[in-house]
Amino acid sequence: MPDRGAYDSETVFKILDEGLICHVGFSVDGQPYVIPTGFARVENTLYIHGSAASRMLRTLAEGVQVCVTVTLLDGLVLARSAFHHSMNYRSVVMLGRATLVSDAAEKIKALEAFTEHIVRGRWNDVRLPTEAELKATTVLALPLAEVSAKIRTGPPKDDAEDYDLPIWAGVVPLTITPAAPIADPRLKVGLETPAYAKKYSR
Amino acid sequence: MPDRGAYDSETVFKILDEGLICHVGFSVDGQPYVIPTGFARVENTLYIHGSAASRMLRTLAEGVQVCVTVTLLDGLVLARSAFHHSMNYRSVVMLGRATLVSDAAEKIKALEAFTEHIVRGRWNDVRLPTEAELKATTVLALPLAEVSAKIRTGPPKDDAEDYDLPIWAGVVPLTITPAAPIADPRLKVGLETPAYAKKYSR
Repeated sequence: MPDRGAYDSETVFKILDEGLICHVGFSVDGQPYVIPTGFARVENTLYIHGSAASRMLRTLAEGVQVCVTVTLLDGLVLARSAFHHSMNYRSVVMLGRATLVSDAAEKIKALEAFTEHIVRGRWNDVRLPTEAELKATTVLALPLAEVSAKIRTGPPKDDAEDYDLPIWAGVVPLTITPAAPIADPRLKVGLETPAYAKKYSR
Repeated sequence: MPDRGAYDSETVFKILDEGLICHVGFSVDGQPYVIPTGFARVENTLYIHGSAASRMLRTLAEGVQVCVTVTLLDGLVLARSAFHHSMNYRSVVMLGRATLVSDAAEKIKALEAFTEHIVRGRWNDVRLPTEAELKATTVLALPLAEVSAKIRTGPPKDDAEDYDLPIWAGVVPLTITPAAPIADPRLKVGLETPAYAKKYSR
């Protein structure tokens, strides 16, 4: 679908910054794996992280080719024909090779970005990583060099002769909606729910 | 995270049937690709489909190794430490080789499943596929043989000594919520919005 491709970096960044999960693709002995994980973007770099024991991160740190995809689902497209049913979405596909972040300052910066990517304002409130936690965490960087976006928006596109059929057609928009926060059952008495959790928005 | 793995097929099917998008992973000349697409499950088979001209489907139809992943995001887990921040999710990872569906009856059955997977009840209302549309559509089947699920639920898991910190912790639940349907601007006058669009639910 060539008319759904090719966007500027502002569009790409907006999709990435709205996404919460990316799907990381890599191969081991010819078998591809697609693993969901959190991520964060800092300027032209995408970061992922996890346990230093993670097989995925150890494989990627070797510098193998990787594909990271972020997809936002915006709606269901109900056409008059079964054939033209579709979904409205925005997605970004990133190709390249990841590198291990060993610089301590960059690593901390990336960890801050992960936390802030989930909930803006959270980093200032949390207990910061210890030396041992930093050692136990692997952070990988993927330069945003080979990147493409795809976007589908708008109403169904039916065949000309189908528009006369007595069949309802349109879009059911979908959004990710936060519900009321559930406090940890072990929460210390008297702690107020912060605004970024009570009125969560992206 | 071994304690998040290994589930029965009922659990796996429930995740698949709730998901709307899967991420398909495959390699071409050593470069992995991860592409989002719709899907449907019929018993022990996962179907994906698209244009017969699609590079992804032509590659997969050759019988190369594939990984298909479906992820449902259920919430943001705000721990007391940055380190223990996480997300609640349910995911299914399927490995194997896809085969081209050439049997006409199975192909129609799969197309019905795609439409019904998006909106239950829709198949009975739409203009059904023509011979030409069937020819232009490739359907691939992936047997659900090598399948694993991962699930994270519940509150944050903080380090014992962190529970005394005066930091709010808990979960912000997230759900995919339908908004009011947007009728096609070219909708025939007098057509009512069907209940499955007006009160969409999964």
